Amino acid sequence: MMETPLLLTSFLKRVEKYYPEKLVISRTSPDTIHRIPYKEYVKRTRKLANALTSLGMKRGTKVGSFAWNHHRHLEAYFAVPCAGAILHMVNIRLSPEHIIYVINHAEDEILLIDGDLFPLLEKAIPYLKTVKHIIIMQDNMEIPESSFPNVHSYEKLLAESSDDFNFPEDLDEHTPAGMCYTSATTGMPKGVVYSHRGLVLHSLALGLSDSMGLMERDVVMPIVPMFHVNAWGMPFASVLYGCTQVLPGPGFTPSLILDLIQEEKVTVTAGVPTIWLGVAQEQEKNPRDVSSLRSVVCGGSASPKGLIKTFEEKFNVPFIVGYGMTETTPIVSLSTYTSSMDEWTPEEKLNIRATQGITVPLLDTEVVNEAGIVPQDGQTMGELRIRGPWIADEYYKDERTSEAFKDGWLYTGDIAVVTKEGYIKITDRTKDLIKSGGEWISSVDLENALMTHEAVFEAAVIAVPHEKWQERPLACVVLKEGKQTTKEELISYLEGQFAKWWLPDDVVFMNEIPKTSVGKFLKAKLRDELKDYQVKS
Amino acid sequence: MMETPLLLTSFLKRVEKYYPEKLVISRTSPDTIHRIPYKEYVKRTRKLANALTSLGMKRGTKVGSFAWNHHRHLEAYFAVPCAGAILHMVNIRLSPEHIIYVINHAEDEILLIDGDLFPLLEKAIPYLKTVKHIIIMQDNMEIPESSFPNVHSYEKLLAESSDDFNFPEDLDEHTPAGMCYTSATTGMPKGVVYSHRGLVLHSLALGLSDSMGLMERDVVMPIVPMFHVNAWGMPFASVLYGCTQVLPGPGFTPSLILDLIQEEKVTVTAGVPTIWLGVAQEQEKNPRDVSSLRSVVCGGSASPKGLIKTFEEKFNVPFIVGYGMTETTPIVSLSTYTSSMDEWTPEEKLNIRATQGITVPLLDTEVVNEAGIVPQDGQTMGELRIRGPWIADEYYKDERTSEAFKDGWLYTGDIAVVTKEGYIKITDRTKDLIKSGGEWISSVDLENALMTHEAVFEAAVIAVPHEKWQERPLACVVLKEGKQTTKEELISYLEGQFAKWWLPDDVVFMNEIPKTSVGKFLKAKLRDELKDYQVKS
Repeated sequence: MMETPLLLTSFLKRVEKYYPEKLVISRTSPDTIHRIPYKEYVKRTRKLANALTSLGMKRGTKVGSFAWNHHRHLEAYFAVPCAGAILHMVNIRLSPEHIIYVINHAEDEILLIDGDLFPLLEKAIPYLKTVKHIIIMQDNMEIPESSFPNVHSYEKLLAESSDDFNFPEDLDEHTPAGMCYTSATTGMPKGVVYSHRGLVLHSLALGLSDSMGLMERDVVMPIVPMFHVNAWGMPFASVLYGCTQVLPGPGFTPSLILDLIQEEKVTVTAGVPTIWLGVAQEQEKNPRDVSSLRSVVCGGSASPKGLIKTFEEKFNVPFIVGYGMTETTPIVSLSTYTSSMDEWTPEEKLNIRATQGITVPLLDTEVVNEAGIVPQDGQTMGELRIRGPWIADEYYKDERTSEAFKDGWLYTGDIAVVTKEGYIKITDRTKDLIKSGGEWISSVDLENALMTHEAVFEAAVIAVPHEKWQERPLACVVLKEGKQTTKEELISYLEGQFAKWWLPDDVVFMNEIPKTSVGKFLKAKLRDELKDYQVKS
Repeated sequence: MMETPLLLTSFLKRVEKYYPEKLVISRTSPDTIHRIPYKEYVKRTRKLANALTSLGMKRGTKVGSFAWNHHRHLEAYFAVPCAGAILHMVNIRLSPEHIIYVINHAEDEILLIDGDLFPLLEKAIPYLKTVKHIIIMQDNMEIPESSFPNVHSYEKLLAESSDDFNFPEDLDEHTPAGMCYTSATTGMPKGVVYSHRGLVLHSLALGLSDSMGLMERDVVMPIVPMFHVNAWGMPFASVLYGCTQVLPGPGFTPSLILDLIQEEKVTVTAGVPTIWLGVAQEQEKNPRDVSSLRSVVCGGSASPKGLIKTFEEKFNVPFIVGYGMTETTPIVSLSTYTSSMDEWTPEEKLNIRATQGITVPLLDTEVVNEAGIVPQDGQTMGELRIRGPWIADEYYKDERTSEAFKDGWLYTGDIAVVTKEGYIKITDRTKDLIKSGGEWISSVDLENALMTHEAVFEAAVIAVPHEKWQERPLACVVLKEGKQTTKEELISYLEGQFAKWWLPDDVVFMNEIPKTSVGKFLKAKLRDELKDYQVKS
């Protein structure tokens, strides 16, 4: 067989040849939506490659992006790796200290920054050690005042650049294409490098009928940010398959998301549960036409069953839960049905939807504890480990590599069970698991159950120290606007569903659960705040 | 990223874990249909690997198969390559001379032969130089009498073997997995070797929504033989996705094919046009319920438009034309629609269906003539060339490699045009093209048009020598049972559709068009028979 390398470059060639008129729909401000045919998009991508090359980008150069989801970011998604360089997608929600760290650690030489995000980064500039050029991405050619010498306008650079650029087709497929950093429990974020091979295979996985099944006639809207694990691979796969892309830009709200779904007839969209909780509330208040949607994909943290039910039963939209991490490019599994479930009851099907799903082809997942691989019984807990061609094998120049990567596997730090059908169900993070009297209690199961209560908006369950049982569960609950309930009512609501010793010892009502930059519950902070909590009983 | 190799082995692990109860439905004789759950299938595959190993199979050993489509052949499809050896699928329709050549040339050490095919091979046995063991595949444990010393019963070997076999997971993904020989115009057949990497990527391509879109809930029936280019990759992909497989066994007829579609609720099936012509005739006479079919895939040679129309309009079954060769694993392109065609007229859509389709992801196709890459105008002819990760780069130990493989491309010997939408339309084989007065005439276009005439069953158009124009087209026509027409009527039928100088100079009516072992028109034979033909006019 030919030694043709698996390169993102082939995606650009394909979209230009077969889907030149299909659109990238890019919202860059509340008033501006660009509608760019792929043939124009590919030209602009080649111009960007020329512009970056003229500023010193070579094979292996790190180019940072600090940007929302829009067509310029998508241009960088291809111009940088297809030229043999590496796009470092910086998470704009990191703390200034972490932003400085990741840019210096990756050794970014050029930064592509959204005009409206420049103020966020401005104070960090004096601490950046390797950055030589900053390029401002916005609709006009203005550049902000800055003491930094080399600040360029993206549109001016493109206007001055040729659209003739030969992306090399002879790169080794293991060449790094992109990188993202993932927050660590303690210490600085950890870097993950994505290769062309990994991204190409991941894009194929997203096109499989039994996974996301992305296809040419899809209109794909990634709500998940492009600075977060390749926006779950959708921008890459959409170019490969010629899907219309809707990139929602800055400052999107539930209302805007629903407007875009209705106006652009979005068929597939994806984001974290927090987003869909907001969208569900808005849709119940002001319904839009969402009949174009064939699938909403939800990941990043556990999806409450009530949310899944709302989308599937009230809005008639399949709601697919996915699982992945920064270390996994990220798609590992999706809660799609198999034909054996056709005759199941709605409740049984909902239980499957609420799992993290079935592992996609080419990846291998195992849940292991001291006794080895756990049985597929839906009960025995163990740690989830993963291997496969789009799974990282290290943290970039980081000694913490050995904590997660062992014996050819990525150890996820997630506690899971495996259902009879082989579906993964995350029950906890290793560090969030509640160890009561030598037994394990899943905080996530309790949270999901609490969040199906009609008065509960959000719930986090954490371990608090206990003299006799070592740890006991404590529920932290945020109520829906205008709703009320009591500790007693919530505990009795849980009673039928769990063993008695699983029930939280107490319920704390609060206004907000602290969250990470990507919307996950920050349980470490909760535990810290509540470490001296004494159960009143 | 992890260096996980792309191996067929991962398919077996997957089907055993996620789809243990799904079925391989295998017809081994007119009275016998086996229904084997995948969990049992994988066990038998491991037993086969043990049995073959005990007979001397090592990494790199060539194991030949000489068999119909059934579960034992499917067991060999995985047991041999997953153990690191190479399955040589021998085309049972080759001449005895060619069969001897390919088995000796590949250096097969073990042969897996269907009991009912043994007589076909028996006389060849004394000429086989490398074969040490012959294994008879049939439902019972009998073995035929033979002067060859080591003839074994497949089922007896399996009964005596352990189902514990560790398929290696550390093979290089470029390791050869299979091989097939393709007939040459002159001389002995040419061998093509398939690697694990190529077969894995090809299997992914078959699962993409925009190609065949194979998925778990499909019931896949390959009519194309498993001794012919990996049965177009369907057996491999079906195991990967956990599809139910229906393997129709020996001596199938149009009537049997329709019975299986109806009884097993087949959703996808594939074969050459000759098969579907027969099936269409049978379905018109004795209609079965074919409503389970979501797609019939047709390839191997050009599909007459009338046939496509019959399936799509009369039977309401999408009829997808594909293109591929032994050298291409084989899927290169499929005539699926894109969303831009939604509003097209039925005639325009039929024209697209009748092309060889749009190239699947990861492959690169170009049509080139002396002026370079031809424009996408649907008119300019050139030779089709292909490259990509499941395209061969040589003929196995064969000097003819340099005839087809040049500058990193496979030159197909097919003359094609490219439509505005980028779809490939084969207009001829290089050697079948009619060169009249310095211009090219497509024999395939004329044939397709003739075959839409209500009296015509089959038509082949060939070049006959001509004093003034060098070559002129001659139509060879087989009429449908009970139908009649004349030369004049057929020529006038073509008149509106082609330039005057394209029209055949004459029509010869015959009882049968000579065909190759895989059902393609044998035009070389026709040309030879008619080389002295004088146009009567």
